[in-house]
Amino acid sequence: MFHSNKSANKLEYFFNPGSIAVIGASNNPLKPGGRPVNFLLDKGYAGNIYPVNPSRETISGIRCYPSILDIPDTVDLAIISVAAKMVYNTLEQCVAKGVKAAVIFSSGFAEVGPGGIAEQKRISGLAEKSGMRILGPNCLGIVNTLNGVMATFAFIAELPQVDRKGLGFVTQSGAYGALIYASSLQRGVGFNYFVSVGNEADLEFADFLEYMVYDPHTRIIGGYLEGAKDGPRLRMLAEAALEKEKPVLVMKVGRSEAGRRAAASHTGSLAGSDNIYDAFFKQTGIVRIDGYTELISFTPLFLNGKLPQGKNTAIIATSGGAGVTITDLCESLGLSVIPLGEKARAKMEKVLPAFASTRNPVDLTAAVMTQPEIITTSLRALTEDPGVDIIIANVNFTSLTGEHPAVREFIEIGKSTDKFLVVCPFIFPGAGMDDACMDIMRAGIPVNPDILEAVKAIANLAGYNETLKRRKRPEYRIQYRNSPKPDLEGLLIPGATLSEGGAKAILEKYGIPAAREYPAASADEAADVAGKIGYPVAVKIDSPDIAHKTEAGGVKLNLNGETEVRKAFEEVTVNAGRYNPDARINGVLVQEMLTGGTEAIIGVTKDPVFGPVIMFGLGGIFVEALKDVSFRVAPVSPGDALDMIREIRGHALLKGFRGRPAVDTGAIVDAILKVSDLVTDHRDMIEELDINPLMVFPHGVKAADALLITADTIPGTDS
Amino acid sequence: MFHSNKSANKLEYFFNPGSIAVIGASNNPLKPGGRPVNFLLDKGYAGNIYPVNPSRETISGIRCYPSILDIPDTVDLAIISVAAKMVYNTLEQCVAKGVKAAVIFSSGFAEVGPGGIAEQKRISGLAEKSGMRILGPNCLGIVNTLNGVMATFAFIAELPQVDRKGLGFVTQSGAYGALIYASSLQRGVGFNYFVSVGNEADLEFADFLEYMVYDPHTRIIGGYLEGAKDGPRLRMLAEAALEKEKPVLVMKVGRSEAGRRAAASHTGSLAGSDNIYDAFFKQTGIVRIDGYTELISFTPLFLNGKLPQGKNTAIIATSGGAGVTITDLCESLGLSVIPLGEKARAKMEKVLPAFASTRNPVDLTAAVMTQPEIITTSLRALTEDPGVDIIIANVNFTSLTGEHPAVREFIEIGKSTDKFLVVCPFIFPGAGMDDACMDIMRAGIPVNPDILEAVKAIANLAGYNETLKRRKRPEYRIQYRNSPKPDLEGLLIPGATLSEGGAKAILEKYGIPAAREYPAASADEAADVAGKIGYPVAVKIDSPDIAHKTEAGGVKLNLNGETEVRKAFEEVTVNAGRYNPDARINGVLVQEMLTGGTEAIIGVTKDPVFGPVIMFGLGGIFVEALKDVSFRVAPVSPGDALDMIREIRGHALLKGFRGRPAVDTGAIVDAILKVSDLVTDHRDMIEELDINPLMVFPHGVKAADALLITADTIPGTDS
Repeated sequence: MFHSNKSANKLEYFFNPGSIAVIGASNNPLKPGGRPVNFLLDKGYAGNIYPVNPSRETISGIRCYPSILDIPDTVDLAIISVAAKMVYNTLEQCVAKGVKAAVIFSSGFAEVGPGGIAEQKRISGLAEKSGMRILGPNCLGIVNTLNGVMATFAFIAELPQVDRKGLGFVTQSGAYGALIYASSLQRGVGFNYFVSVGNEADLEFADFLEYMVYDPHTRIIGGYLEGAKDGPRLRMLAEAALEKEKPVLVMKVGRSEAGRRAAASHTGSLAGSDNIYDAFFKQTGIVRIDGYTELISFTPLFLNGKLPQGKNTAIIATSGGAGVTITDLCESLGLSVIPLGEKARAKMEKVLPAFASTRNPVDLTAAVMTQPEIITTSLRALTEDPGVDIIIANVNFTSLTGEHPAVREFIEIGKSTDKFLVVCPFIFPGAGMDDACMDIMRAGIPVNPDILEAVKAIANLAGYNETLKRRKRPEYRIQYRNSPKPDLEGLLIPGATLSEGGAKAILEKYGIPAAREYPAASADEAADVAGKIGYPVAVKIDSPDIAHKTEAGGVKLNLNGETEVRKAFEEVTVNAGRYNPDARINGVLVQEMLTGGTEAIIGVTKDPVFGPVIMFGLGGIFVEALKDVSFRVAPVSPGDALDMIREIRGHALLKGFRGRPAVDTGAIVDAILKVSDLVTDHRDMIEELDINPLMVFPHGVKAADALLITADTIPGTDS
Repeated sequence: MFHSNKSANKLEYFFNPGSIAVIGASNNPLKPGGRPVNFLLDKGYAGNIYPVNPSRETISGIRCYPSILDIPDTVDLAIISVAAKMVYNTLEQCVAKGVKAAVIFSSGFAEVGPGGIAEQKRISGLAEKSGMRILGPNCLGIVNTLNGVMATFAFIAELPQVDRKGLGFVTQSGAYGALIYASSLQRGVGFNYFVSVGNEADLEFADFLEYMVYDPHTRIIGGYLEGAKDGPRLRMLAEAALEKEKPVLVMKVGRSEAGRRAAASHTGSLAGSDNIYDAFFKQTGIVRIDGYTELISFTPLFLNGKLPQGKNTAIIATSGGAGVTITDLCESLGLSVIPLGEKARAKMEKVLPAFASTRNPVDLTAAVMTQPEIITTSLRALTEDPGVDIIIANVNFTSLTGEHPAVREFIEIGKSTDKFLVVCPFIFPGAGMDDACMDIMRAGIPVNPDILEAVKAIANLAGYNETLKRRKRPEYRIQYRNSPKPDLEGLLIPGATLSEGGAKAILEKYGIPAAREYPAASADEAADVAGKIGYPVAVKIDSPDIAHKTEAGGVKLNLNGETEVRKAFEEVTVNAGRYNPDARINGVLVQEMLTGGTEAIIGVTKDPVFGPVIMFGLGGIFVEALKDVSFRVAPVSPGDALDMIREIRGHALLKGFRGRPAVDTGAIVDAILKVSDLVTDHRDMIEELDINPLMVFPHGVKAADALLITADTIPGTDS
């Protein structure tokens, strides 16, 4: 297997250091160096604390050392809060001291321009050379609330903790990450870890993600991400997290072009195309969230230990308007508000008044005030409906005389059902909940009065469980070829733009069918090969200098005999000469004419973060004018390939349309998988591949034209 | 002009009654009838209050009357809270007493089934007959916070009021409306009016909207709508509200099919297609909101009296991550986070440290702690940038020593600039704001710590101002034809399905060009008319029983001579006979062959709420497989028609594509306007119209085929 937590173990010194030195410690709490010692003391860190500052005797009552080298003990973790220009020397002292891990608060590195970039590179080099791992520079540091390791200067270390902690969090923005931490705590959701990665001179986002994936104290992982460094590694970690059924929720910013540019300028991250990130998250089961409140509302629902088994949702409301609003919300977020079973409706109809509704949403109306038991009757009926996966109870338990008569039974039903039950009291966010709702929450049934948040969280959980189930299906496993790797010797040439025959020969080696095609240098030769191929044929100009053949008047289709082929030869060569007088013209290609198919495209681009990314779309206007395409990162599974096909808006066209037969979806899947094999085998070599058009038929597919661009030099061996 | 507030005046007795009777008054506050008297007393209603209850002497210390007829004074408004079966008799007594307006709390009418529906119809009839206007039944009543008219039993009447009241609100859901009212008050946003319309036996949503449009105390109108009754009236009111620059924000539920069904079952409303509502809101300038918090956040921003003059947005942040997040949010909601002007950047660069960013989003970084003046320098620079319309300041004014040094200047700049400035302090929603932010808010600069809400509100305001400006442009005025109405005598036949020639003759009368076409009953005749038209021609089966001609094998295109035409005649008649042996076959239509154009569609359907609705789309797969269409309610302005064309996703195809020339957009607009004239002139007669395809060319358009369905009988005169 490709899981490994070797490197995660190296991070133990950040999360569980036996001793911590604070270099640049100060008694002034306005300075970053003036804060960690107090935080460590306040939060009960049990290891040794060594303040370092040549001009102080003690810091917060603890003996202070002039230099780290003077500390009479081993130091696991060094917190460095000194001026940028002193950081490198300080790190060298740390290395000399045998420090295992260093956190650098100081700013003034890559974020300030060329000088800072150079200095940061020296730091990266030192980490690599020495083996001492570094977090930062320009970061808020790291917090472990489980053992009081407050290696941070952020205010978040001062906040009172809550009991329930299962959430590890990694952030590429310090201040925004701290806001998320504080907001979460205010809502009663505690973090176990908080890591601000700053400029990522050594350790990066994925390193801490890896630690948390393999850490038994972490049950959910949250992240704020501006740009990933290593897509394939992130993919392996996502896979490992799925195996451990540990959800990873990432707030990836830069959805808009303006946001992408801002993120790139902020973290200096690559921040590639957002479409590709989106595809990557779908493919790997990472839950992409658009705002941090999605993380805060997801966490307690997940920690309750139950997942929605499907997306079929029943709603109990006490206001018709609220019921309709929640229905719209559920449907817009991918949940299905389904017709209820006849049995469930009959059970409810027995007790509900005539003006109430037993449809979905169930509307108890104000009758709930005088007949409180209708809440539990309805709830029980819905828990017994086999079609229902999720129940959202938008009810109040208003009682004028002490405990609401239905609350105990409500809790009992909620705790014994296997349906996913969430209570959204009919109040507005921020309004006080009644005692009954508090009791329900204490009994372990999720309660969230913010309907938008609650429904989003439920939808995210349902989607997550769908991913877990999907992962167990064989078609979502990457299938490694058990035949030998096709030999492309002499075909895949460095620094080349291979079009037509050159590219199609490579496709055929990988088993992707291509239209038959032969070059012809003269009209006679063209007529000759046309006869061999069989009519009708197409004639296309063959020139390395003409990429857009149609635009150049270099394509003639549907030629039905020798005369037409000869004429076409003359015309396309003349047209091409006019279009580009400098073009080298080899002659023409005579090609099997493919009729009766639908045009599709399979493309591959090389993403700086994710490597080869496969694109699928319908041909012509669909890709070019409507941008109706789907992406997945290579390698893809058969399930991914099928998802790519289903994801495009024009998908209906492939299922047969206006009397045309359905196309062979299986053959498209097969072609995508073979392209995936090809670009995975030669990931360093292939820069770009376009099969355009791939003609798709009721039976089979055929590449009509293809273009393949290779790298000038191969960065490494690739076998 | 078509504005009138005649009917609005009749509602004065609901909003400003001189005396109120409460029929079914009680001393028991658990009963609906037990509450209004106390509410009226508590909230200082200054008119006379007359409780009515035959078994009580006094209610809340006020003399009680056995019947409304015993009250020795005129009664303007009667509140009725008696059992459903007693309501009608009580209303008759009210009529006898000369009561002007009645509110019926009681439920048990249309919402309980056939018996209730019949009883409710009697109530509607009484209102019509007597002229006494009725609100309800099955409603929460009406609240006027300006004068203490608390004609409601809802808890909202007990809530403490706030000073600022400019928001009138009408709701089709009582309980959900009350939740919105309470949530708004909690946020410091006061309603002047709250109207729960219940079952709308007499007065409906639009009646109260009308009152508020013409009411000088209302500056914004909010609504919760499940289904409108009268589209054209709503359109006139929207127009009047735009003229008065009074925004109307409507939360229209039923976006999803499940929600639409639930709304229909809840209010018994028509709840037509959500696409058409969406188009209607765009067309009329009503701001559609998806949640009530959009109303709550919009209101104070609007009441501040400034509108964004465009959508170009600059962001000041103190966290890079927050800046990127806000950028994504702005862009996703239609605001543009633009590159800043060189001058503005230069001004900021003078004071910002090297690690900060003067790009947009401007990132002040933590430097703001030590150099607080960079907030105001940046703000000033942005207010002086002519490219900027909106400034979002995501900053904190943390000061360790009393008043923050930049606050006064910040307020000064904010108050003197004409840019739209909103402060979103860098805290999480629900966290306490610092003193500086409170000062800024008190000074009249909008502050909202919920970034999502703030950006939505800004986007809604910017969109609203765009609508106001658009409305002043002549192309958004409906242009009434100054030529006489075309004579369709003998062409527009009741109860007919007119296809081909019949429909195209009508189009031509309205100036919509159509392909030339003649019927032919024999192969000879077909060859003859083909010669007259000129080759190439198309031959199509002519049968009233075959709607899908292509499917029936009843169409032959591109025929290039007499022989081909004769052969086509035989083929299509044979095919049609096979397709439907019972079909009446008149012969064929020989049609001018239209080449080189792009297929489009103009369709018209009759919506139960909005009347004729025009649809535009590209032909074939675009409409049928991609559902890529746009709608507007007739009549449409030239601007609306152009918006319809621009709104479709495939719009790029009309602008010229892959070497094809751009099509004649002006001619499409013209065709849409003429269709609009036709279906407006004959709105009662025309049930459905389809011009499919409308061939669009670089110059001009031509209807190739059309279908027109008329009503069996004309419900009224239509000239």
